[in-house]
Amino acid sequence: MIVVLGAGHTYEHRQAVLRKIQDAGLQAHVSEGVERTIVGIVGDSRSKELLHDGLQLMPGVETVVRILHPYKLVSREFSGGKDTVVWVRDIPIGAESVVVIAGPCSVETREQVLQTAQAVKLAGAKLLRGGAFKPRTSPYSFQGLEEDALKMLVEARDLTGLPVVTEAMDNRQLELVVKYADMIQLGARNMQNYTLLRDAGRSGYPILLKRGPSATIEELLLAAEYIMAEGNHRVVLCERGIRTFENHTRYTLDLNAVPVLKQLSHLPVIVDPSQGTGKWKLVTPMARAALAAGADGLLVEVHPEPDKALSDGPQQLTPATFAAMMQQLDAIAMAVGRGI
Amino acid sequence: MIVVLGAGHTYEHRQAVLRKIQDAGLQAHVSEGVERTIVGIVGDSRSKELLHDGLQLMPGVETVVRILHPYKLVSREFSGGKDTVVWVRDIPIGAESVVVIAGPCSVETREQVLQTAQAVKLAGAKLLRGGAFKPRTSPYSFQGLEEDALKMLVEARDLTGLPVVTEAMDNRQLELVVKYADMIQLGARNMQNYTLLRDAGRSGYPILLKRGPSATIEELLLAAEYIMAEGNHRVVLCERGIRTFENHTRYTLDLNAVPVLKQLSHLPVIVDPSQGTGKWKLVTPMARAALAAGADGLLVEVHPEPDKALSDGPQQLTPATFAAMMQQLDAIAMAVGRGI
Amino acid sequence: MIVVLGAGHTYEHRQAVLRKIQDAGLQAHVSEGVERTIVGIVGDSRSKELLHDGLQLMPGVETVVRILHPYKLVSREFSGGKDTVVWVRDIPIGAESVVVIAGPCSVETREQVLQTAQAVKLAGAKLLRGGAFKPRTSPYSFQGLEEDALKMLVEARDLTGLPVVTEAMDNRQLELVVKYADMIQLGARNMQNYTLLRDAGRSGYPILLKRGPSATIEELLLAAEYIMAEGNHRVVLCERGIRTFENHTRYTLDLNAVPVLKQLSHLPVIVDPSQGTGKWKLVTPMARAALAAGADGLLVEVHPEPDKALSDGPQQLTPATFAAMMQQLDAIAMAVGRGI
Amino acid sequence: MIVVLGAGHTYEHRQAVLRKIQDAGLQAHVSEGVERTIVGIVGDSRSKELLHDGLQLMPGVETVVRILHPYKLVSREFSGGKDTVVWVRDIPIGAESVVVIAGPCSVETREQVLQTAQAVKLAGAKLLRGGAFKPRTSPYSFQGLEEDALKMLVEARDLTGLPVVTEAMDNRQLELVVKYADMIQLGARNMQNYTLLRDAGRSGYPILLKRGPSATIEELLLAAEYIMAEGNHRVVLCERGIRTFENHTRYTLDLNAVPVLKQLSHLPVIVDPSQGTGKWKLVTPMARAALAAGADGLLVEVHPEPDKALSDGPQQLTPATFAAMMQQLDAIAMAVGRGI
Repeated sequence: MIVVLGAGHTYEHRQAVLRKIQDAGLQAHVSEGVERTIVGIVGDSRSKELLHDGLQLMPGVETVVRILHPYKLVSREFSGGKDTVVWVRDIPIGAESVVVIAGPCSVETREQVLQTAQAVKLAGAKLLRGGAFKPRTSPYSFQGLEEDALKMLVEARDLTGLPVVTEAMDNRQLELVVKYADMIQLGARNMQNYTLLRDAGRSGYPILLKRGPSATIEELLLAAEYIMAEGNHRVVLCERGIRTFENHTRYTLDLNAVPVLKQLSHLPVIVDPSQGTGKWKLVTPMARAALAAGADGLLVEVHPEPDKALSDGPQQLTPATFAAMMQQLDAIAMAVGRGI
Repeated sequence: MIVVLGAGHTYEHRQAVLRKIQDAGLQAHVSEGVERTIVGIVGDSRSKELLHDGLQLMPGVETVVRILHPYKLVSREFSGGKDTVVWVRDIPIGAESVVVIAGPCSVETREQVLQTAQAVKLAGAKLLRGGAFKPRTSPYSFQGLEEDALKMLVEARDLTGLPVVTEAMDNRQLELVVKYADMIQLGARNMQNYTLLRDAGRSGYPILLKRGPSATIEELLLAAEYIMAEGNHRVVLCERGIRTFENHTRYTLDLNAVPVLKQLSHLPVIVDPSQGTGKWKLVTPMARAALAAGADGLLVEVHPEPDKALSDGPQQLTPATFAAMMQQLDAIAMAVGRGI
Repeated sequence: MIVVLGAGHTYEHRQAVLRKIQDAGLQAHVSEGVERTIVGIVGDSRSKELLHDGLQLMPGVETVVRILHPYKLVSREFSGGKDTVVWVRDIPIGAESVVVIAGPCSVETREQVLQTAQAVKLAGAKLLRGGAFKPRTSPYSFQGLEEDALKMLVEARDLTGLPVVTEAMDNRQLELVVKYADMIQLGARNMQNYTLLRDAGRSGYPILLKRGPSATIEELLLAAEYIMAEGNHRVVLCERGIRTFENHTRYTLDLNAVPVLKQLSHLPVIVDPSQGTGKWKLVTPMARAALAAGADGLLVEVHPEPDKALSDGPQQLTPATFAAMMQQLDAIAMAVGRGI
Repeated sequence: MIVVLGAGHTYEHRQAVLRKIQDAGLQAHVSEGVERTIVGIVGDSRSKELLHDGLQLMPGVETVVRILHPYKLVSREFSGGKDTVVWVRDIPIGAESVVVIAGPCSVETREQVLQTAQAVKLAGAKLLRGGAFKPRTSPYSFQGLEEDALKMLVEARDLTGLPVVTEAMDNRQLELVVKYADMIQLGARNMQNYTLLRDAGRSGYPILLKRGPSATIEELLLAAEYIMAEGNHRVVLCERGIRTFENHTRYTLDLNAVPVLKQLSHLPVIVDPSQGTGKWKLVTPMARAALAAGADGLLVEVHPEPDKALSDGPQQLTPATFAAMMQQLDAIAMAVGRGI
């Protein structure tokens, strides 16, 4: 951490700053400039963090600059540069092959889930997704079939062998979800729901953590840090679109986050082009682009009859379009030296 | 709702659309243009909403446009144009006088809370705020004193008579908060935590609902609709800054939301210039501006020693600065025909 | 400027950095931490700036942090803390009284301009605005009456005594505008049109510089620096809304920029609530809020018949609404210790 | 265009709206709902556009909804669905092969340009870029070598055969640029510089039009419409990053814009990953992603010694990194059925 004493600071200002640093058991290195003086603080990073806000308010101080990332366990440095692989049953996420997770936005009927599961399995998907508890902007929209949906997902898993990932929105839903599913999805709206992050951490289950629509990359990593700080290192990060002024797409799928996350963190990174764009016609090109950018996998919504879907029909692929997309993805995965 | 059939649509496309509308028990009015055909749908709005996504996916359809707001109970039309007043104990929010809610970001010690409560009461605050459960970006930051903090807040209320507002982040915290506090704050990060919104609705307590940093005004109103749909009409809306590219302030406090919310909704609207700007030097001018824009109140962070605060020191006022601000706010409140 | 050498940097990395700094005639102060090493650079700021990008690319370097603002002439430090007053003929902007600039979005007819000028003068406006060259998103929209409009504005000035401010979009228009008008407006879309900024600087005329919709506060100040670097210190800054995800308003009028700009710079700051919100019903509350936030003035669009306006009708006030607003602004200006 | 008459509108309100529509020579189709009445307007689209703002201000009117895109010449409908190919000398942009345009951010020395031109040619680039007039945020930064740079670019073209693209920022620079270069770049900051768009249109030269950092996709298309409306149909669109809250990248490169633009328009679309990310380590993955998303080409900055560059060093590739990237792009181009 670095403290900048501004133009017009006095000797007393500087001494007070140095005293505060020493009182915290840290060392200060002073560089005097023409107008400003720079104080570098050396020592335990937790102690430094505790000083940050207080130093900023001291007389004469112009600004306090953090030098270190505020996260540890999620950082690539922590893993010694190695990529982490998260296993969901027998499926590795973050290994050489890219992994496609597919299924309906919401579980609506037994037939719908079974049919979709079989279709996506046939086309090459490795995990099944399906919403049992749906976060909906309006209280008047379809809210999910809850535990019934979880049972149907299990039936689909029994039929196809595809492990199941589904969302939990609070601790009560979490208790149900872990009874049935293989991986817990924490949705974009709950990325900074810290009690839920902790609960998910304690569950020990693999976690699919979606980036919030207004979350910076650093905030996403800190949310993952909450889970890992509970001892659960099985976290997969998911880019799913951020809020910007552009309104032609529902969100702006931020593919830049893929290489950035891979550089900063050792965790696997997947991309959700369905939620990210909100338009099924954009799903295939953005899925291709996600793999080309280096994503370890994709989360794609598929529905046998999107025009009858109870949620997010406009962004769901049909099984036929999904199968066509998978063929294209195969070529891209090869081009970047990976299989699918 | 309006369906636009695009250039190149066929007779069959149009008939299929009309059939779908009729099957849902709704009426269709057709306007033929040179290239496009416009179909207006008339009838029950819930039935229309269910058709929206499906129509959008039908062949020949270019776009489907919603005409009505998706919310009802929160809308000004619903109250017949009247302003709602939310009472917290004996304090009315949304009445003629503007209401200032003040107190520390986090409850840290008994002395800190009691001292702050007395100071803000003296300066004219009408409710006491203080965080017991703190949503923090990093798992390594101070997370709040929890139930101990709630007890201190009650002691401060006993001392000063100020009703207490504090945040709950999930159902378990909610159960504790309602035992002690007078008003439940739902924080920005939980604005779309729908199970929490429902729980808060069922509690019957007055709710202070903060706008999420990436939430549109419409989404804020829909979040309030979740609470009201549970029968709890005691909701106060709070603008507290949105995420934009501007990084000189922590968030961009969006004061435009104040007159917009007052026009669209009957609920009281307050503003949080502390969280909204993240810098104590901006709190006073933005508090003045908020009242001038028509806000019904303010939420302001005050700490006896901001440089020693365990959270958000840089945005907290001292009791002295707070008192000075209150005098300025008095003049503004008068200028807009309201007291404080 | 500070260079941070990251974990794993070698002795050679550090020596190369120190050599580069010395070669530029600057001094380096080294602080060694456990993993990182911090190098503070002291000396002439221009020389430091030239090193910035190059240092960032050197092996072992994690990041390079700027400590100083990149602008000088616009900064409050430059004026020794004093506020600058910009005179437009006999009207001071940035002095004790706040100044309202009003008039139609576009000059459309002689009658319209003369009538509006008289009405706004009567209600208390101190300068007349009116667009002769209109930047329009679509090439098919009305583009302004050009020199004819400038002549009508002069006639309106002769009639009312109100100095005239109008926009120029390039050097050719600038040549015309300076023949007729008293103050040159540089529009939001041209805030980073650097050749135009220079031309405006060389003109010596007072400049009304509008913030671009995606410009940070720092970029606005650097745009003003371009003008001042040509020797023209008569610059008034104007906040007029930034692009955000919120779409209920046309832009998000960022009133936070008002106190921030007043803290960072000595230049006068005014606000345009018409462009900033795009809706006439929001103009009055946001104008009140702007003055309460500390603005030195306002830019407001007024049209005798907004529903017949050739541009931006929905955001223009009628003369009657404008007069009513001025009375409210009078009360706010008093409340903040200023007249109008 | 559709007019929605809101709850509480009267018979007189409706009649006034219908009269206004008829007076403009247009037809009105009325659909009556329970509370709202919908009026579809049929007829010439220019006449409708002129009515838009005025209708919105009429008593009883809740909103006016546009149905048609506001652009024509740029739309895919206009070309009958066919892709446009823009030829720059003998190089087709928008044809089967993707085209890589490469070269230094700024032209700095003769050696630098000639060396870079040869290197990028060898690696497979088809056009040479290089800035002669540089738009810089600060007036104190390097502003380009101007005409000298243009001459060096011509020399590089003579040496390598690569056609030259370079930016002009106003009409005076445009006159110079057309003397030397083969394609005119209009930069992001000038995307809504309408007089420059017109001048560029009249020049008849191929235009590389970069999206402004706060421009919607629709605004980018309308900017292209300005050029085409002058009779110049040789326009290539370029996505180069938008302003969002994410600050890890300099801008957020919006690859969603690629498939969206291809769907809406017949013009070629290229992507600039150098400007878009601001970090050379992100250029290769985002270039791969851009081609996978369907881009017709790339604009990439290459400098022999990025750490000595006079502008934007951190985002420039070395010739070696560029050559390595080109091999990867080759594989991606194949995977999407195109060559390079």
